Amino acid sequence: MKNTATLLITCPDAKGIVAAIANFLHQHNANILHADQHQDAENNLFLMRVEWDLDQFNLDEARFSEHFNQVATQFDMTWQLKFSAQKPRLAIMVSQYDHCLVDLLHRHQAGELACEIPLIISNHRDTEALAAYYGIDFHHIPVTKETKATAEAAQFKLFDEYQVDLIVLARYMQILSADFITRYPQQVINIHHSFLPAFIGAKPYHRAFERGVKLIGATAHYVTEVLDEGPIIEQDIARISHRDQVEDLLQKGRDLERVVLSRAVRWHIDHRILTYANKTVVFD
Amino acid sequence: MKNTATLLITCPDAKGIVAAIANFLHQHNANILHADQHQDAENNLFLMRVEWDLDQFNLDEARFSEHFNQVATQFDMTWQLKFSAQKPRLAIMVSQYDHCLVDLLHRHQAGELACEIPLIISNHRDTEALAAYYGIDFHHIPVTKETKATAEAAQFKLFDEYQVDLIVLARYMQILSADFITRYPQQVINIHHSFLPAFIGAKPYHRAFERGVKLIGATAHYVTEVLDEGPIIEQDIARISHRDQVEDLLQKGRDLERVVLSRAVRWHIDHRILTYANKTVVFD
Amino acid sequence: MKNTATLLITCPDAKGIVAAIANFLHQHNANILHADQHQDAENNLFLMRVEWDLDQFNLDEARFSEHFNQVATQFDMTWQLKFSAQKPRLAIMVSQYDHCLVDLLHRHQAGELACEIPLIISNHRDTEALAAYYGIDFHHIPVTKETKATAEAAQFKLFDEYQVDLIVLARYMQILSADFITRYPQQVINIHHSFLPAFIGAKPYHRAFERGVKLIGATAHYVTEVLDEGPIIEQDIARISHRDQVEDLLQKGRDLERVVLSRAVRWHIDHRILTYANKTVVFD
Amino acid sequence: MKNTATLLITCPDAKGIVAAIANFLHQHNANILHADQHQDAENNLFLMRVEWDLDQFNLDEARFSEHFNQVATQFDMTWQLKFSAQKPRLAIMVSQYDHCLVDLLHRHQAGELACEIPLIISNHRDTEALAAYYGIDFHHIPVTKETKATAEAAQFKLFDEYQVDLIVLARYMQILSADFITRYPQQVINIHHSFLPAFIGAKPYHRAFERGVKLIGATAHYVTEVLDEGPIIEQDIARISHRDQVEDLLQKGRDLERVVLSRAVRWHIDHRILTYANKTVVFD
Repeated sequence: MKNTATLLITCPDAKGIVAAIANFLHQHNANILHADQHQDAENNLFLMRVEWDLDQFNLDEARFSEHFNQVATQFDMTWQLKFSAQKPRLAIMVSQYDHCLVDLLHRHQAGELACEIPLIISNHRDTEALAAYYGIDFHHIPVTKETKATAEAAQFKLFDEYQVDLIVLARYMQILSADFITRYPQQVINIHHSFLPAFIGAKPYHRAFERGVKLIGATAHYVTEVLDEGPIIEQDIARISHRDQVEDLLQKGRDLERVVLSRAVRWHIDHRILTYANKTVVFD
Repeated sequence: MKNTATLLITCPDAKGIVAAIANFLHQHNANILHADQHQDAENNLFLMRVEWDLDQFNLDEARFSEHFNQVATQFDMTWQLKFSAQKPRLAIMVSQYDHCLVDLLHRHQAGELACEIPLIISNHRDTEALAAYYGIDFHHIPVTKETKATAEAAQFKLFDEYQVDLIVLARYMQILSADFITRYPQQVINIHHSFLPAFIGAKPYHRAFERGVKLIGATAHYVTEVLDEGPIIEQDIARISHRDQVEDLLQKGRDLERVVLSRAVRWHIDHRILTYANKTVVFD
Repeated sequence: MKNTATLLITCPDAKGIVAAIANFLHQHNANILHADQHQDAENNLFLMRVEWDLDQFNLDEARFSEHFNQVATQFDMTWQLKFSAQKPRLAIMVSQYDHCLVDLLHRHQAGELACEIPLIISNHRDTEALAAYYGIDFHHIPVTKETKATAEAAQFKLFDEYQVDLIVLARYMQILSADFITRYPQQVINIHHSFLPAFIGAKPYHRAFERGVKLIGATAHYVTEVLDEGPIIEQDIARISHRDQVEDLLQKGRDLERVVLSRAVRWHIDHRILTYANKTVVFD
Repeated sequence: MKNTATLLITCPDAKGIVAAIANFLHQHNANILHADQHQDAENNLFLMRVEWDLDQFNLDEARFSEHFNQVATQFDMTWQLKFSAQKPRLAIMVSQYDHCLVDLLHRHQAGELACEIPLIISNHRDTEALAAYYGIDFHHIPVTKETKATAEAAQFKLFDEYQVDLIVLARYMQILSADFITRYPQQVINIHHSFLPAFIGAKPYHRAFERGVKLIGATAHYVTEVLDEGPIIEQDIARISHRDQVEDLLQKGRDLERVVLSRAVRWHIDHRILTYANKTVVFD
């Protein structure tokens, strides 16, 4: 595993941006490993991801900021710098369906996810033994209409305590408050069990069955104030037929949810996602 | 190509249906080629498709009806009998986008579609030369808000004249009147350029682009009174990314529309589709 | 969960088979839940799967055989009768890669697989803790060239002791002896990490990378004497690009292997598979 | 349609390449529209595609070469410069199956392919009327074992006469001579009707049917001296079942072949493909 830095940039499109960034990195002896860019002509936006080997790079984090600000100011850039050595810390929130949790924990153990997973929060106790098996702290915080505010306060406290960078809703069946969402912008990923924008809201598989669709889907997205309307990170589908009953949809859907959520989480922790205009750019 | 008959049956589920049908066919010396059935437990429905070789079968159409009615009455069946020798006659309606029309005509010529295509109707003249190339009668019937009723009357006259069994809307960009739809129940197949029920109505690719979805779709369905709400026959999707602009969606979508519409048309003319509860059963 | 029986039949094609079977079942008061059949014209073969509710069925296993043999003899049938109440017993064999094992165990716990899993055998100790977590007996049987015969003898003993019906090679990296394969015909399912018949044998992902393919695959098949040449049960693929290194292929491949193997295992334990001419018929 | 230039570069990997190219383009007032690069660590190779708007660019073709050679020499680059205004000229070779030809001609007419198609060559007369419909010159050159050399000589003459840049084998069922292949390196694209490297050579669908695979495929590749072993450009697959006979495979395969070949052709004429080590890098 190489020791790398990743720079994510958004700015108005202009001539000379790539040259300016490439020169800056070259001057400081960066060995560029991956560079990917995207122009949105309609919005006149330039978006870039560049990752380089830190081996012979001659700036540390503080000095990078100091030096790079000149380039950034010139092109009116919004930028983030991420180091592969500083692994993002995840909290996973889950209710009773455990298939996404099982999947994330196994992938993490197998080395597929470059993050720490110090914390699992659930409003049920079903996944407690699993958390113990993987050696991860489990906190049971029941939620009712009346206790939601208190419960969320307890969750916020845990996120602070465990220094959480990303919250993954792995089939967590509670709707988050506006306060929760505002606190963690672009930091909460949800898996919705339909092909959004079809079947927003509750019981999408039941509604898919009723409508008689021939494909079902799953969507991973960042959570925003409007339910199931946040920027879509990834989607996938599975074929169904008239032979499939609702339970078959649920089962086939589980396979989708697992794969779609894990891809979205991996891209986030690898710093591959930029968002704008309620959309994502995924630099894969 | 074998000379076959296909029986499509819907009835309340009960014991002994399969035995009754199998016995009836065996008594009359049918050699069953394909039999497929489906039970919908929730609606207590039994649906079946059975196709047999007519070679040594000892009933003609009139006598079949006479003899089979006893079985049908016993189980309260709704049934249709179709003969492979009587090819369905299609009218294709199209506006300016010709990709679905090109595809259907080429498949027909290649022997993929067991039907006649005697008639193409368009509200534009763009596809006239293509119709001529394939030797199919082309009728240009312009439609405006004011002339819609007259235009449809002319269309109905043509359908009668050409003895049309199925009307395929191959990107025909006019909304049919309630009268049209009522006249041809389960006889009009449309291709909608989205993954229904997402993006019902106009400009689905533009709306898909705005929403930032990661997959686009196409849906073939029977036309009913409610726009884009009829029984879905087939759907498929294509992957897109942030690099794809609206024009790319349109282009990738064309490939989907072609394949999805042609599958739906083939299943219809092969008598593989039964509908109930606004859904389809496709016996493939 | 209904209490059902499933009959799998293979015989020379002839008129009247379906009627004979349907009549037999109807006479004994079976409520048919699913019936599916297939004719192979080239080989003049008739294959059928029929499943019925045992609720009011008036024959037990012994008497079924006695009565059904008359029909079976008439049409020269090979048949098997399976009861949903008698769950197949699986042994899973695994080496160090545990992703397929994790997947099968979680699906089993989630109720997706109607079987018992009493036994895990491995030539390594890596999955011992996992087996313990799921409460399944784990046996460590190392294998070297010299000890293979002894190791297999120990395995056979365990299969007997645990009354195993199906052996699943969930990335078990040892080649089975001819003796092993002969003992358990159509009872050993393997997952091969390529799209067979491409890349038979060792290191398929490395060879796929070298060849520069744009898709990788996985194949579940019954094990026969010739390596990777047994009847194929299921296959699937994933798209790759020039950006994917061998490790990416390995990772994407793991997702394929999981899904493909679990489908094959499910179809086997649901008695949906018939084999002939080194192919499978999967009645889904 | 913008007036653009595209530069394709291959060179040993080194620090500063991106900066050097970006600076060069910036100095000459290029507005970069797309830039994509790939490093092959194993082979220590750097590959890049960069496309820019020619609107305010201040070098013409001759002066570009003169100025850019300094950069190229410094990094030991192999490079090609392509202008969107100079559309590649295609010859399509076809035998009797016309589905790929129909598809390419319709896509071309629909504006999907930024090329000229002045020439169709066939060893049969089946597609002559189609060529006439699209207004493309058709040359009938029969081929037998004895006349192959003469036939190819006639083909070469036509390629010269029509100034052909790319030869597309759209189900052309003759094997090209070594001489042919040597004359047009990386300029002949073939569609093979299997998932290579499975089923190399003749009758792949028949062999797929015999083997009992559950997926069939198609592969577009550059033609090299070894049959079906050239660099793979694109592949795709379709699901089949035991119900599909050889004719069904042929039909499903046609849909694959069309889509796969047209993607490969589009990428080639958009200058998106670099080849090395018998593989392709497709900058999409």
